[in-house]
Amino acid sequence: MWDKRDLLDINSLSREEIELILHYARILEPFSGKGNKLGICKGEILITAFFEPSTRTEMSFATAMHTLGGDVQSFKPLGSSLEKGENKEDTICTLEQYCDILVIRDPEIDSVKRYADLVNIPVINAGDGSNEHPTQALLDLYTIWKTFNTINGLKMAIIGDLRYGRNLHSLIKIFGKFDNNKIIGISPPGLELPNNFKTGDFKGIITEMDKLNDILAEIRSDIVYVGRLRKEYLPLGENPMKYKYEINRDILNKLSEKTIIMHAFPRVDELNPEVDSDPRFLPFKQARYGLQTRMAIIALLLGHEKELMISNEELPTN
Amino acid sequence: MWDKRDLLDINSLSREEIELILHYARILEPFSGKGNKLGICKGEILITAFFEPSTRTEMSFATAMHTLGGDVQSFKPLGSSLEKGENKEDTICTLEQYCDILVIRDPEIDSVKRYADLVNIPVINAGDGSNEHPTQALLDLYTIWKTFNTINGLKMAIIGDLRYGRNLHSLIKIFGKFDNNKIIGISPPGLELPNNFKTGDFKGIITEMDKLNDILAEIRSDIVYVGRLRKEYLPLGENPMKYKYEINRDILNKLSEKTIIMHAFPRVDELNPEVDSDPRFLPFKQARYGLQTRMAIIALLLGHEKELMISNEELPTN
Amino acid sequence: MWDKRDLLDINSLSREEIELILHYARILEPFSGKGNKLGICKGEILITAFFEPSTRTEMSFATAMHTLGGDVQSFKPLGSSLEKGENKEDTICTLEQYCDILVIRDPEIDSVKRYADLVNIPVINAGDGSNEHPTQALLDLYTIWKTFNTINGLKMAIIGDLRYGRNLHSLIKIFGKFDNNKIIGISPPGLELPNNFKTGDFKGIITEMDKLNDILAEIRSDIVYVGRLRKEYLPLGENPMKYKYEINRDILNKLSEKTIIMHAFPRVDELNPEVDSDPRFLPFKQARYGLQTRMAIIALLLGHEKELMISNEELPTN
Repeated sequence: MWDKRDLLDINSLSREEIELILHYARILEPFSGKGNKLGICKGEILITAFFEPSTRTEMSFATAMHTLGGDVQSFKPLGSSLEKGENKEDTICTLEQYCDILVIRDPEIDSVKRYADLVNIPVINAGDGSNEHPTQALLDLYTIWKTFNTINGLKMAIIGDLRYGRNLHSLIKIFGKFDNNKIIGISPPGLELPNNFKTGDFKGIITEMDKLNDILAEIRSDIVYVGRLRKEYLPLGENPMKYKYEINRDILNKLSEKTIIMHAFPRVDELNPEVDSDPRFLPFKQARYGLQTRMAIIALLLGHEKELMISNEELPTN
Repeated sequence: MWDKRDLLDINSLSREEIELILHYARILEPFSGKGNKLGICKGEILITAFFEPSTRTEMSFATAMHTLGGDVQSFKPLGSSLEKGENKEDTICTLEQYCDILVIRDPEIDSVKRYADLVNIPVINAGDGSNEHPTQALLDLYTIWKTFNTINGLKMAIIGDLRYGRNLHSLIKIFGKFDNNKIIGISPPGLELPNNFKTGDFKGIITEMDKLNDILAEIRSDIVYVGRLRKEYLPLGENPMKYKYEINRDILNKLSEKTIIMHAFPRVDELNPEVDSDPRFLPFKQARYGLQTRMAIIALLLGHEKELMISNEELPTN
Repeated sequence: MWDKRDLLDINSLSREEIELILHYARILEPFSGKGNKLGICKGEILITAFFEPSTRTEMSFATAMHTLGGDVQSFKPLGSSLEKGENKEDTICTLEQYCDILVIRDPEIDSVKRYADLVNIPVINAGDGSNEHPTQALLDLYTIWKTFNTINGLKMAIIGDLRYGRNLHSLIKIFGKFDNNKIIGISPPGLELPNNFKTGDFKGIITEMDKLNDILAEIRSDIVYVGRLRKEYLPLGENPMKYKYEINRDILNKLSEKTIIMHAFPRVDELNPEVDSDPRFLPFKQARYGLQTRMAIIALLLGHEKELMISNEELPTN
């Protein structure tokens, strides 16, 4: 039952539900952007309310809703009544009156769940502090499925800031839900995965770049997933340089031809642009696949599974 | 005659015109948001130009126009040519070229009227400094009508910053236009209603919270309308704390079961969240009713009264 | 061949292509704003990404796309992942995934060309530093055509900051492409036209306002085009007052009844508002004509020339 549900974290999705989202994302792929518009959400309004910066997530939710035929309104904290002293709870309860679905990002852990409890329309968690970013994990899984034609029996190395990387937390949870997947987490000392997200192997060993190269070569994972250092969540006064790590061409040269490089973006210094032209580099594909994944999620939460099933028969699939 | 008119203040609306807006707002209620879209404003564009913060007004005008089938563009002063030294008059005359109707908020009294005089398309005053906010008064009146099934013979206590509360100014004017309504204004000394807005009783007596409780209990009004302290309009250096007032559960306990609590929001400290769950607390309903009220206003000013009359026959009403 | 092309500068447009844009702009004129919407771009999405302030350009591209039936999303640097350290190249390559056409403004010369090389969708240069602003030149030419019914054999005086005025650079190039046009450039010493834009006469002689009056009276040009002083591009610490110039009623009184006054706006002090009521003052018409010109450009770059040709037969033209 999808109708009027929230999407707040990975653990509240069953394996079957995740597979269904991937299934509908694939059906919607021919309609993601590029001049093909559906009428599934005609007359419905999605509001994005982001209390932290975003490029991909906010823009792709907007494009997803537009492509489904709905309207989009972007609530911006700057210039809003927050400047007159209104609290976020009142703001969210107000926005509820003006839309059919809310997409919220907030710097505070578990805040989006709290907002969702206040309102009667579906709420999507677009990132709650360093906690979770479930739609990113779903589009990552979709990217993996499109690449390997399976989401089972794969090995993934996740590199970087495992402590504050909310997308990595959601990814680890979703990847662990399927059969025979193996995760190896590698993080600089101090940025280890919090215990509550743990499943698989986690090593705190990026002390020198040379070692990272050797480890990755040795692991022979199907996926190398790189995370950004979340400077914004580091304790004040800490020097980000002490956590520095970088994936570059040298490392790619040691990896298998089949190993893909993923990153949720934005990147800063941890993924050298010299690797962008490598066919194994998938971040912009991930951004693209975010469209159809989010289209499927929006349509399901707004209770349009029936229309998606009709599309299934009538529309071209790849 | 509505076509191409502006909506700048309450006094330029006749009693009959106000009743007509309420009438059409009720007709439009089933279509306000929530997946029902009309085609009344198809092909038309509304631009919001807010030179002061807003959450409800800007967002609900956007939702109202989207629900009428039109498009919405939000002009933001930040990032505009105002940063290159352009004045607001040139900005407004430019925006006129790109839309069919303008919704403007500006910190200066009477400025929106001045802008309206410059352009040939309908202009809606969404707040001009501490002067007026006529569409808020219209949605407040709609809320009162929906609650009491009449807009005559009612008693309203208006509490708070009567000096700078523009929505209260418009509300006092509109409420005074109907038969046998009684207004009791209660404000901290120094925040009394300006003389040009006066009609009914006005007392400057909130010096201690206990007295406010007693007064409200004694007045037995149908409506308790709470205003926010407009710190942004206080003379520089004044301490807002000296004007402090608060409506809380203690007060509600002394009021009749029929007395409703209204507030235009945002609220800061003047309305304790402990009253939110009380069925007499209506602010989020006001926000919701703002949708259909603004839909009616937009449709009328764009010359679509005929289409509204057709809707009247064909569409479900409550 | 228009399909999937970029519009980055004037020199890559042939004379015939420019005439075709004007031709389609005229066909689209009855549909520019004001409640007439076409379905030419239904299902397509335009994203504006402005890294410098804008009012007219950004808003008119939005209105143009809405009027063509497409959707519009405004990417704002503030609140985007640029704040997390993402570079503009990654940002642009991300936005590419979410739209069909990109409109970009950037303070750096030639940057928009560099972005366009990175992506596979049409890119429109909405101003690259002090270099070019080709769609402004096209709408200016359209305004000239509408006024004189020809774009040949005309004399234009261009006054002001010829060094940093990107729209003037594009205008000089486009005007010089047609037959027997004469350009006289007049700029304060230090703000002369860069050599690579030169064609026609250029004089650095506005040292006193009185002289400007006499020069303009003597030149008897068909068009007086006024440019804004680009304070934002002046070397740090330079006093803008030393470059001051102003067109006022005194000058207009000396000009022919047929001479039109143009300005791309925003204006600051160089065009006195006392001339606004003069019928020869055309800046707001330019703003209006920007709509249909940009509609034609968007439709062509998105490969819809065939639909424009159909419109040609079916739709009223002026």
